[in-house]
Amino acid sequence: MRQIRTDLAMESFQSSGGEGMPGVRVSHWETMGVNMTEVVVEQESAARALGKAVGTYMTLECQAVRQRDLDARLAMANLLGEEIARMFHREGDAPVLVVGLGNRRITPDSLGPQTIDRTLVTRHMFQELPEYADPRMRSVCALAPGVLGITGIETMEMVEALCASLHPQAIICVDSLSARSASRIGAAVQLTDAGIQPGSGVGNHRKSLTRETLGVPVIAVGMPTVIYAATLARDAMESLSANVSGEALDSVEQEMLKGDAGEMIVTPREIDDLICDAAGIIASAINRALQPDLSEEEIMALMD
Amino acid sequence: MRQIRTDLAMESFQSSGGEGMPGVRVSHWETMGVNMTEVVVEQESAARALGKAVGTYMTLECQAVRQRDLDARLAMANLLGEEIARMFHREGDAPVLVVGLGNRRITPDSLGPQTIDRTLVTRHMFQELPEYADPRMRSVCALAPGVLGITGIETMEMVEALCASLHPQAIICVDSLSARSASRIGAAVQLTDAGIQPGSGVGNHRKSLTRETLGVPVIAVGMPTVIYAATLARDAMESLSANVSGEALDSVEQEMLKGDAGEMIVTPREIDDLICDAAGIIASAINRALQPDLSEEEIMALMD
Amino acid sequence: MRQIRTDLAMESFQSSGGEGMPGVRVSHWETMGVNMTEVVVEQESAARALGKAVGTYMTLECQAVRQRDLDARLAMANLLGEEIARMFHREGDAPVLVVGLGNRRITPDSLGPQTIDRTLVTRHMFQELPEYADPRMRSVCALAPGVLGITGIETMEMVEALCASLHPQAIICVDSLSARSASRIGAAVQLTDAGIQPGSGVGNHRKSLTRETLGVPVIAVGMPTVIYAATLARDAMESLSANVSGEALDSVEQEMLKGDAGEMIVTPREIDDLICDAAGIIASAINRALQPDLSEEEIMALMD
Amino acid sequence: MRQIRTDLAMESFQSSGGEGMPGVRVSHWETMGVNMTEVVVEQESAARALGKAVGTYMTLECQAVRQRDLDARLAMANLLGEEIARMFHREGDAPVLVVGLGNRRITPDSLGPQTIDRTLVTRHMFQELPEYADPRMRSVCALAPGVLGITGIETMEMVEALCASLHPQAIICVDSLSARSASRIGAAVQLTDAGIQPGSGVGNHRKSLTRETLGVPVIAVGMPTVIYAATLARDAMESLSANVSGEALDSVEQEMLKGDAGEMIVTPREIDDLICDAAGIIASAINRALQPDLSEEEIMALMD
Repeated sequence: MRQIRTDLAMESFQSSGGEGMPGVRVSHWETMGVNMTEVVVEQESAARALGKAVGTYMTLECQAVRQRDLDARLAMANLLGEEIARMFHREGDAPVLVVGLGNRRITPDSLGPQTIDRTLVTRHMFQELPEYADPRMRSVCALAPGVLGITGIETMEMVEALCASLHPQAIICVDSLSARSASRIGAAVQLTDAGIQPGSGVGNHRKSLTRETLGVPVIAVGMPTVIYAATLARDAMESLSANVSGEALDSVEQEMLKGDAGEMIVTPREIDDLICDAAGIIASAINRALQPDLSEEEIMALMD
Repeated sequence: MRQIRTDLAMESFQSSGGEGMPGVRVSHWETMGVNMTEVVVEQESAARALGKAVGTYMTLECQAVRQRDLDARLAMANLLGEEIARMFHREGDAPVLVVGLGNRRITPDSLGPQTIDRTLVTRHMFQELPEYADPRMRSVCALAPGVLGITGIETMEMVEALCASLHPQAIICVDSLSARSASRIGAAVQLTDAGIQPGSGVGNHRKSLTRETLGVPVIAVGMPTVIYAATLARDAMESLSANVSGEALDSVEQEMLKGDAGEMIVTPREIDDLICDAAGIIASAINRALQPDLSEEEIMALMD
Repeated sequence: MRQIRTDLAMESFQSSGGEGMPGVRVSHWETMGVNMTEVVVEQESAARALGKAVGTYMTLECQAVRQRDLDARLAMANLLGEEIARMFHREGDAPVLVVGLGNRRITPDSLGPQTIDRTLVTRHMFQELPEYADPRMRSVCALAPGVLGITGIETMEMVEALCASLHPQAIICVDSLSARSASRIGAAVQLTDAGIQPGSGVGNHRKSLTRETLGVPVIAVGMPTVIYAATLARDAMESLSANVSGEALDSVEQEMLKGDAGEMIVTPREIDDLICDAAGIIASAINRALQPDLSEEEIMALMD
Repeated sequence: MRQIRTDLAMESFQSSGGEGMPGVRVSHWETMGVNMTEVVVEQESAARALGKAVGTYMTLECQAVRQRDLDARLAMANLLGEEIARMFHREGDAPVLVVGLGNRRITPDSLGPQTIDRTLVTRHMFQELPEYADPRMRSVCALAPGVLGITGIETMEMVEALCASLHPQAIICVDSLSARSASRIGAAVQLTDAGIQPGSGVGNHRKSLTRETLGVPVIAVGMPTVIYAATLARDAMESLSANVSGEALDSVEQEMLKGDAGEMIVTPREIDDLICDAAGIIASAINRALQPDLSEEEIMALMD
């Protein structure tokens, strides 16, 4: 079975024909105007078929977020915060490390670093300013490791080195994602306990950020910001005619991938605003999940 | 005849079937590794057929520019500077006004404002610092008028108001363009004496920046930075099969335009760097064309 | 009488010995934790003595704003909005033009442009999207004209040209100010109906933005972001000893002005955050004053 | 003996009375229009007296750099590159780690991160793209660790963790400095093999980046970008009268430090451009010193 290029497990599942696949459980529900989809990949065989590692993948979708509706953004942040809290049970005083993946200087790739800018970090207050350290605060630290071409250091190397030094109890990674459907760009957030795996999601453990490689729970949160141009074109062709064979589609997609459009991305014109909104939503959700005993006002006051 | 969405006259010509169209002359040549194409639209009937106003359109193309090759960028800046100088004959002391169109905060739309940042302005030196005003310097002023949603003022209104006040002898407009072919994104520059016309290029004179509306020569320079997603998809479909009818293609394109992908753009992932390079090339060409009596070193020293 | 370098009329008044000066009325009051000072310069003789043009100058001061306290920022925005509304009585449908002075790329000078980014502009909605134009909305347009060295165009020329074209009923200018007292940096806002006058505030009408030069009311709003280094040093010296003569102080200040420190500025290390906060406060006040029939939520929703 | 607040060893030496201090050797020379001063702190007693750790401190000064003269910037980059190469002898294939200290979002503190953006990193090419890895290239990696308030992680912790993982053969730290003399802001660069020590330079080893704490040579490079306001005021007072006692000066300085001006900084208005120039000079010097077998053109081509 051919795998389409998408970082969303729910899209991998849909394009694989869905429903009857053994080793995968899918549920849908709706709350506060947000469509929730949970895909649980239970078996390695399903993981290989979907190109998504074993684990739970929650997708929250809301078109009004893309329209920049304020209430929708608040609802999304609330629900995402609850889901993060549900996925990760804090124990003890060890810090949580939030990692913002991606390149700050490439707009559609800057969601991770921009989220870090809005995340409440507190670890240093316990060490440096114990008089300000409210006992209700939990220890959080954060890092935007940059990208290989700028640092010469693999993200995995940097996170591994920090884990050995900081001994976090868990890691939350934030990253820009690709999707298949244009309707999900800027409108969906995926949350998973499977961590982050480059490429197909199976193999290449050397670069994976997962519980297996890092020894602590790794939760990944991301919003789709781009579609690969070849994926968009393939889908457009598919919609043209049910008669076009899969082989013909594959060959056109391969042609495109080899050509100038191969590595081009499809993105909304207003991508800068969209990333800014998404960073606000995800940071707000992380702050609530990691600081359950602080009110929103207290978090805002500490952020300034 | 159906018009594809592109700002490049050479692509409008190609997609119209090309060659035999009355009222259009096309020539090609190659120099210093840059492919030059000149499309001269001589008659109104041809303008309507192509969706491009009467005038001369030069396109300079060089794939090595997209690869960020330093020599290619210098060659492109040199040739573009020569073509601008050829298109516009300076007379007298009145200033030239350079206008950077587009939105500084939307990366693929920021070519105009970023070019203005690198353009040598001198008009104030004659007025404020006559002792620094080298007699070999020519008067240049510049403006990035911003976009309607941020200022509430139409670009045409602002340029018209400044023309009435500054009495420039000519206007050079810089803008981001759309193309049809992925190979031209970041690799081509179009220069025209037809000015800038929103939409189809015919009609809607109220918003046009042209010699007709402003009373002075208006030269437009731009680099394609995006493809419309629907255009890319249509082209992919077309390449799939010669059997697909134009009507079928049109209907799929219309579907896409109505959907979420309709207003999405296709752009290289490295668009921030690409815009930065393009602004450097175009500003360098403008500076050379407008300051023929200054050396490159003198221009650089004055820019700092 | 010697004039110290400050853009705040209340500081000019204080340093002139204050109280008994004929032609000046001063009042103080306090509300919602904000200290209000109103200086009314009534006569030309007083204007020359203070180096501030005839007019009303309101200063709102609140140290908690500098500490980035959220409630204090809201109180400041509310009070400033009320004072702007009190100074300017809207009549008819002509737009108000908001002008953001200063250089976007020099942080302490970027208050004007950053405020423009957060100002609700509506003029184009009446023209382009009348179906979205709520009849309760008032027409506002905005401009960040940039600085002479970047555009080659005097701010006054640009604003005058736009006035002739747009026929605004009033102009609100926003600018970064200098102060004498370190305690007012980031903590005070000045509002005046005297407009903006470069240098001493008297003479040089060619470059002034005032009701006299532009023919419509000109309100200026600004926050002090810097102290001139020579002013700070002079004040430090003065505090050292009551015995130091004014001539000795003047001569040291002159020495400093001639040296490397002459054009240096004194500014808080956290100036980037401070400007960001100030732009938010001033834009919020302007939006409320100019859109009295819209709720804060409606303004926010329209801004996005 | 009282120590003034400056990061430049040559200024500590000058203000301590200079010349006869045991345990310190000072030499001056001039080359290519750049004034070179070498201060060698040889004994612990001298280190305590100066507040600068034992080591060699080179200062390169050139007023034309502050005037943004192109030739002066090239000369400074060349000489600084030679001095870095003289201070550090590369052996074997282990990478050099370049660390950019400071806060990217506070302009006068952003020299370190901005320098990292212009440093050629190559370590990943040896690992990921061995086919592109010219054998003449040396391994370099880079990091801008951010600041404690944003990451919750001490710079020293992060660098220590990376050292344990990457085993660099040496570390080069880049940071913004404070100076005493306004003439050195933007015009001088200090280079030292003493590493970086917060505060007085003695004690507090927990946070020092030095050969002692990290186990490999640590070279620090920096440009003064600010003067502390209290230092400037004290110097102004001192210049007023030889009669003012040191105690009186100390007490005024203490008053200022307690007041609003205490933590204010004195900086040129054009600080954004100045930092940009300085980052270019220092990165260029580092690139030449670390890649002695590549030409400048090859370095530029690899940087793009």
